[in-house]
Amino acid sequence: MATLEARLQALEDREAIRELKHRYLNACDSKDVERIRSCFASGAIWIDFGPIGTFTERDAFVALYQQMACQPQVIDLHHAANPEITLHSGGEASARWAIFYFNLDADSGLTRQLGGVYLDRYRKGDEGWQIVESVCRLHSVVTGRTLGEPDEH
Amino acid sequence: MATLEARLQALEDREAIRELKHRYLNACDSKDVERIRSCFASGAIWIDFGPIGTFTERDAFVALYQQMACQPQVIDLHHAANPEITLHSGGEASARWAIFYFNLDADSGLTRQLGGVYLDRYRKGDEGWQIVESVCRLHSVVTGRTLGEPDEH
Amino acid sequence: MATLEARLQALEDREAIRELKHRYLNACDSKDVERIRSCFASGAIWIDFGPIGTFTERDAFVALYQQMACQPQVIDLHHAANPEITLHSGGEASARWAIFYFNLDADSGLTRQLGGVYLDRYRKGDEGWQIVESVCRLHSVVTGRTLGEPDEH
Repeated sequence: MATLEARLQALEDREAIRELKHRYLNACDSKDVERIRSCFASGAIWIDFGPIGTFTERDAFVALYQQMACQPQVIDLHHAANPEITLHSGGEASARWAIFYFNLDADSGLTRQLGGVYLDRYRKGDEGWQIVESVCRLHSVVTGRTLGEPDEH
Repeated sequence: MATLEARLQALEDREAIRELKHRYLNACDSKDVERIRSCFASGAIWIDFGPIGTFTERDAFVALYQQMACQPQVIDLHHAANPEITLHSGGEASARWAIFYFNLDADSGLTRQLGGVYLDRYRKGDEGWQIVESVCRLHSVVTGRTLGEPDEH
Repeated sequence: MATLEARLQALEDREAIRELKHRYLNACDSKDVERIRSCFASGAIWIDFGPIGTFTERDAFVALYQQMACQPQVIDLHHAANPEITLHSGGEASARWAIFYFNLDADSGLTRQLGGVYLDRYRKGDEGWQIVESVCRLHSVVTGRTLGEPDEH
């Protein structure tokens, strides 16, 4: 029978993992490169983003992110949904998330909406919870074009 | 004045109900029929999905789901947002969720985006929290078509 | 070292703040004006919705909301994602949310999808947690048109 403290710790861990993923995705939208880097563990990790590539340490991933996303015409939304989080022993956890990604190319007006799934693993260390594995698989890709000039409403 | 244990239990129940709904919606996206079934109580339930139909037990609902969704060209996203959960006495709870549903027909390239609301009731039993009532009401239906061949970016 | 009670209270506060924002956004979708009003503190507040305007008390904001949204052809989705909540001392808190807003004009069939960020502040008083500051900044605006008559599937 888990103690009150252990049960509380489990809830706090789940909350911290949710916020870690939210921090990562919000940092992707705001192109905050150092914040993205800090969401991943500094040692060996595994990122598999399908056709975008696979990465075994965070600096290589962040370098590609910068090259692809940090351009003024790239406007991205990364919205997470439906987290299912499982805590394991030894300060490890895993989760499945649904992802809604939406990209607007501000030069051409072209849009691309991706729906898919993240399968993640997390580890708790001196820096708190960090991502040690992230596999992204897409369900659907839909392309379009904004009808007119974006307004600012 | 609620005890620490009762307050902790309430937070755990809210967390379990959120994950139940997420499990259900993720299983709908991945067409995991047995996982969908296990989200609903095995006895009398009430599902009202408007024009899709009403159901008083889970097997009838799952049978229709299989017929409608388990086809290779049907690509679905069910993303939940904005949960408001209320715990009642006797192991019962209710919730309101906003839903973003997006369907791509991979044969025709036609898309359909639905926005709406789920009004749910849950009961806690030997199988943990399960859905005993789910009423879905739509706000908006928007149809479209993907511009071109899906790419895999 | 925080006591069990203080840690539990922190989790309850985070949960209450999430549900406050969800209640607000769901009330915006359902055009429940009194529910929207009750989400904001009754005294001096700060709402900055960019081109929509700025507001220093809730009644002025609710009056504009009614004028803009409470018309039968205006069909809105306000779906929140990615909350990052920080609790401060003295019953104050702040949060960053990602927002997916989608509007369908039921008369013309025109659609408008907005992606952006809410930067909020909250205060806990006799009415529980309420919003005292809400700044909304948009990332992307995409306009479109539904292909055909909405169906009710």
